[in-house]
Amino acid sequence: MLNVGVIGCGYWGPNIIRNFNAHDEVNLVSVCDKNAEALTKIKNLYPGIETCADALEITRSSKIDVVCVVTPVSTHYELALDALKNGKHVFVEKPFTATAAQAEELIELAGKKKLMIMVDHTFLFTSAVRKIKEVIDDGTMGKLYYYDSTRVNLGLFQHDVNVIWDLAPHDFSIMDYVLNKAPLAVSASGVGHVNEQEDIAYVMVYFQNNLVAHFNVNWLSPVKIRTTLIGGEKRMLVWNDLSPDEKIKIYDKGIDVGTTEGIHNLLVNYRSGDMWAPRVAQTEALKLEVDYFVDCLNEDKTPFNDGEAGLRIVKLLEACDKSIQNKNKMVSL
Amino acid sequence: MLNVGVIGCGYWGPNIIRNFNAHDEVNLVSVCDKNAEALTKIKNLYPGIETCADALEITRSSKIDVVCVVTPVSTHYELALDALKNGKHVFVEKPFTATAAQAEELIELAGKKKLMIMVDHTFLFTSAVRKIKEVIDDGTMGKLYYYDSTRVNLGLFQHDVNVIWDLAPHDFSIMDYVLNKAPLAVSASGVGHVNEQEDIAYVMVYFQNNLVAHFNVNWLSPVKIRTTLIGGEKRMLVWNDLSPDEKIKIYDKGIDVGTTEGIHNLLVNYRSGDMWAPRVAQTEALKLEVDYFVDCLNEDKTPFNDGEAGLRIVKLLEACDKSIQNKNKMVSL
Amino acid sequence: MLNVGVIGCGYWGPNIIRNFNAHDEVNLVSVCDKNAEALTKIKNLYPGIETCADALEITRSSKIDVVCVVTPVSTHYELALDALKNGKHVFVEKPFTATAAQAEELIELAGKKKLMIMVDHTFLFTSAVRKIKEVIDDGTMGKLYYYDSTRVNLGLFQHDVNVIWDLAPHDFSIMDYVLNKAPLAVSASGVGHVNEQEDIAYVMVYFQNNLVAHFNVNWLSPVKIRTTLIGGEKRMLVWNDLSPDEKIKIYDKGIDVGTTEGIHNLLVNYRSGDMWAPRVAQTEALKLEVDYFVDCLNEDKTPFNDGEAGLRIVKLLEACDKSIQNKNKMVSL
Amino acid sequence: MLNVGVIGCGYWGPNIIRNFNAHDEVNLVSVCDKNAEALTKIKNLYPGIETCADALEITRSSKIDVVCVVTPVSTHYELALDALKNGKHVFVEKPFTATAAQAEELIELAGKKKLMIMVDHTFLFTSAVRKIKEVIDDGTMGKLYYYDSTRVNLGLFQHDVNVIWDLAPHDFSIMDYVLNKAPLAVSASGVGHVNEQEDIAYVMVYFQNNLVAHFNVNWLSPVKIRTTLIGGEKRMLVWNDLSPDEKIKIYDKGIDVGTTEGIHNLLVNYRSGDMWAPRVAQTEALKLEVDYFVDCLNEDKTPFNDGEAGLRIVKLLEACDKSIQNKNKMVSL
Repeated sequence: MLNVGVIGCGYWGPNIIRNFNAHDEVNLVSVCDKNAEALTKIKNLYPGIETCADALEITRSSKIDVVCVVTPVSTHYELALDALKNGKHVFVEKPFTATAAQAEELIELAGKKKLMIMVDHTFLFTSAVRKIKEVIDDGTMGKLYYYDSTRVNLGLFQHDVNVIWDLAPHDFSIMDYVLNKAPLAVSASGVGHVNEQEDIAYVMVYFQNNLVAHFNVNWLSPVKIRTTLIGGEKRMLVWNDLSPDEKIKIYDKGIDVGTTEGIHNLLVNYRSGDMWAPRVAQTEALKLEVDYFVDCLNEDKTPFNDGEAGLRIVKLLEACDKSIQNKNKMVSL
Repeated sequence: MLNVGVIGCGYWGPNIIRNFNAHDEVNLVSVCDKNAEALTKIKNLYPGIETCADALEITRSSKIDVVCVVTPVSTHYELALDALKNGKHVFVEKPFTATAAQAEELIELAGKKKLMIMVDHTFLFTSAVRKIKEVIDDGTMGKLYYYDSTRVNLGLFQHDVNVIWDLAPHDFSIMDYVLNKAPLAVSASGVGHVNEQEDIAYVMVYFQNNLVAHFNVNWLSPVKIRTTLIGGEKRMLVWNDLSPDEKIKIYDKGIDVGTTEGIHNLLVNYRSGDMWAPRVAQTEALKLEVDYFVDCLNEDKTPFNDGEAGLRIVKLLEACDKSIQNKNKMVSL
Repeated sequence: MLNVGVIGCGYWGPNIIRNFNAHDEVNLVSVCDKNAEALTKIKNLYPGIETCADALEITRSSKIDVVCVVTPVSTHYELALDALKNGKHVFVEKPFTATAAQAEELIELAGKKKLMIMVDHTFLFTSAVRKIKEVIDDGTMGKLYYYDSTRVNLGLFQHDVNVIWDLAPHDFSIMDYVLNKAPLAVSASGVGHVNEQEDIAYVMVYFQNNLVAHFNVNWLSPVKIRTTLIGGEKRMLVWNDLSPDEKIKIYDKGIDVGTTEGIHNLLVNYRSGDMWAPRVAQTEALKLEVDYFVDCLNEDKTPFNDGEAGLRIVKLLEACDKSIQNKNKMVSL
Repeated sequence: MLNVGVIGCGYWGPNIIRNFNAHDEVNLVSVCDKNAEALTKIKNLYPGIETCADALEITRSSKIDVVCVVTPVSTHYELALDALKNGKHVFVEKPFTATAAQAEELIELAGKKKLMIMVDHTFLFTSAVRKIKEVIDDGTMGKLYYYDSTRVNLGLFQHDVNVIWDLAPHDFSIMDYVLNKAPLAVSASGVGHVNEQEDIAYVMVYFQNNLVAHFNVNWLSPVKIRTTLIGGEKRMLVWNDLSPDEKIKIYDKGIDVGTTEGIHNLLVNYRSGDMWAPRVAQTEALKLEVDYFVDCLNEDKTPFNDGEAGLRIVKLLEACDKSIQNKNKMVSL
């Protein structure tokens, strides 16, 4: 049995608690939050779980093997550090840390102490993202041209981070996972209308061979959009995460470039074929992630969403900040 | 009666010809194209119209008062210049010219010779764009936050211009018209996968008071998208030009920012109200534009889509090129 | 405090239990089901609630004031009868009973014993249905022309009833509520492909003044559709219950009939105006219904969804059966 | 060369004229209409075509081999009869005739005189309908369960026919073509709100083996819907004719019925698989139909949309009228 403690019981914490608690090989020992009301709700749902207001009771508990850090990003480093120092494995909410330096320090410490870090990039456990990775990896898409993501809605305003740190970690982690390539540079633009932090932003990520990724994140949109287009040489894909039944559509569409007869006579033919919407299973992603967490510990495997994966995302976020501060300048990675 | 000649009979030319020809006060005298087949089609449809292969027969004809230039952009300057020199009013396809310098020269010449320039920013004559301008101008939207446009589809590849020069003139002219503000700066990113010219690009335009405009133009999208979001303090608007019946939706949604109690206690309340889709008439925009062209000549009015309007768009396009060449650098206007 | 017992813990029962249990003035005493596994789940969620396998322990319990009957329709009569005989108020799942005669008997008994019957027509407590009733009642729609409902999807097959008894009670109760008119006749067609019971059916309900209602119910549709069109003289309405944000759209569209100049010269003009999507709140309907149930008991009010309302729906269902057995014959009510 | 005359220049006539005129082997001799304005438009577009106001000038012209009857249905019989009597082949707008008896008389006469009748069931020449027929005929769909069509919009009111005679001929001819089965019976309901003719109607058509077809036709709908669902044992299909790119979606969905363990223990499993949207070409259907007409004449073939096909549709329409007059009674065919 794994003995697990959870720090943080806000928006996402109850889902972490529910899924760890439901796992057969997990004993959810204790939950911590400064908000007494949040703890009361947990007590009502799970009378057997202890609660506390001081995170150190979790990170330093002798009864706990694993600490889940589900707090605002500004506290991730301190809490994860204390947990690792006390010999606990950590499951950390995304984004991993507030700076790349913090992430690197945690990774080094975990390495020394042979402890596991998993960063909660939940989307990587959805059937939709798995299917996208599959059709990229097996060559169905062909050489990739672009990755274009839109994640906009009204709110939720965070007090401690801007819209990029709030929304883009989802998309950066998905891009990192499905493209599996090292980005060369980042540029970002953003403005804040409600307070000093950006509530609307656009990010470009540049890769080799002219592959580009673009991210539109916005807290001030009247409509909710969760759409990603991926263009490849052989096929093109649209992922609409809000579609109940047809989340992924793969188009047998594209262009065939013929022999150029001189610079102004490029022969471009359009291909227009069938569209195919593969069935996407509806399992809860977080359940699969918790299963995977336990498996990795049991079998002493390094998870693909480890500290390094978390660090890659934090580096992208830092580069965005730097680009915005420098008027949209391209920042090398 | 206005005697009109049309140079260029490619994709858009036949629409220009049809609409000028249908106007009661227009006598469509002559059509010019290098492609004999295109001219034959015109002859079959309109046996009374003369045709020719040499544009100078139009620009220098003593029987013609107005020259429509519906050719590739690289030829606009030369043809419009010759027409103006020969005392003709000109109706020029968008984008107006290949460089701002060319546009300025044409504007100056027309001014001296008291001739009219109209640039064919057709979208400004659609009921949808008129309605958007109306709700911005009458205060319905409140202070504006952002303008976010997506115009993507598969093809049509132009040989002589990149995707920005092909698709963005539509959106730049609409933005120029409905916002009616002078942009401060531009940044743009783009890559070319099919040939050396950009086929995917993203453009930011910066205004005072943190108002930003963003443009996503792409020739390599499997799906056709023609959507613009406009966020305002009071209301937000979605324009989906592909929707047959509900092109414009206005949302009584937004945020109300309360008194801040300290820097980390911003009170943000979300407003969620009704949505309203005003009826948008379905008159052909180009017909209205041709009517307006004739009216302006008859009443000696300066059209709002004059050479200056065309120049503003060309300056934005030039700034995009400069930004792409300088790695996405912000280019002041 | 109201002491409540619930019989039936299948698909819908847990929602009844959750909502009654959450009400401040309710003491949820006991839950009954023949399935031990279902009871264990309830025990885990609500350790304080008693469970039992014999429904009579609920209907005859001296500790219980209200019995919720959430079992298959074939058992409603017997269980509600026993509960009423033992002086309990009843909250009965829809459809109320398997026959109109049963419903009448229960209504009579409740009347004699001054006990309350509420039939769980949950949809009548949704904001969408409330809004529809509002725009009909306040004259926004004008004289009504038709009510046209489609409720189709793949499954869920019931063993004991056909697709009409399974799906149409929702729509019949909504129609009954928003139209508030007595139907004159019913006709129905249906076929069964999977077993002897109808899995596809179409129902017409006829009212005075040529008002008609039509219902398309189907367990064999590849796509889920939940759409109702209501046509009125002044306005027309589309209710798409699957739309997350724009469930109700009201169209200022219609026809204006002018003076007829002879029988073949009817002057029909089409009106095409704005569309308006009123905000629809997202409160849980069942919570509002349980609140209403408690209010009605406290204030000794007769609920609008009482036994009589339940009986009206059962009469429609019986008429459908009769029409199908008589080759789609119109059955008077 | 075929010498063709066209009677009727209203809504659809100009399309017939355009397509026959464009055919290489057709000489479009003359067009007839009582409306002088309509003829003037034709003259302007096609100066070489003769015009006349008297249909007999067409049906009795010695210069004409083929007469196209594109007039209101009440006149089809008389005009086609006169054309056939005078030795012309006929191309008749749908519905073929106002009564089955008229259709039978025309078929008999054409047979005797070895003349061809083609009824303009244009939809049978669309790529979408062709694809539907293909997946039914090749077994992709499996045994068919139902055909469910919705064709509703605001207007167009016909003065001489009801909504069934106006809209359902499209759907009846498509059903007749893709199912290729003889219907057993028809029932229909309808009401008229604007004048005495039905403007809203619902039709059921019954086939062997419990296959049913249902048609919802309505002139009073605020939204335009053109959707057909076809359910089969192996696959299910949705045809949305208003979708620009994905008109046909084929779902690998359905049910697998297991061994029944007693009457109340039917084992029904749901299959949920991929969805596939085959590419549907965008050729103009009427062009293909005119090509086919000429081919049939050249090669002395009997068209599949011959007088018999037209008659089958008229019989269905007559049965609808009879059922409505008899309170929705099932009418055997």
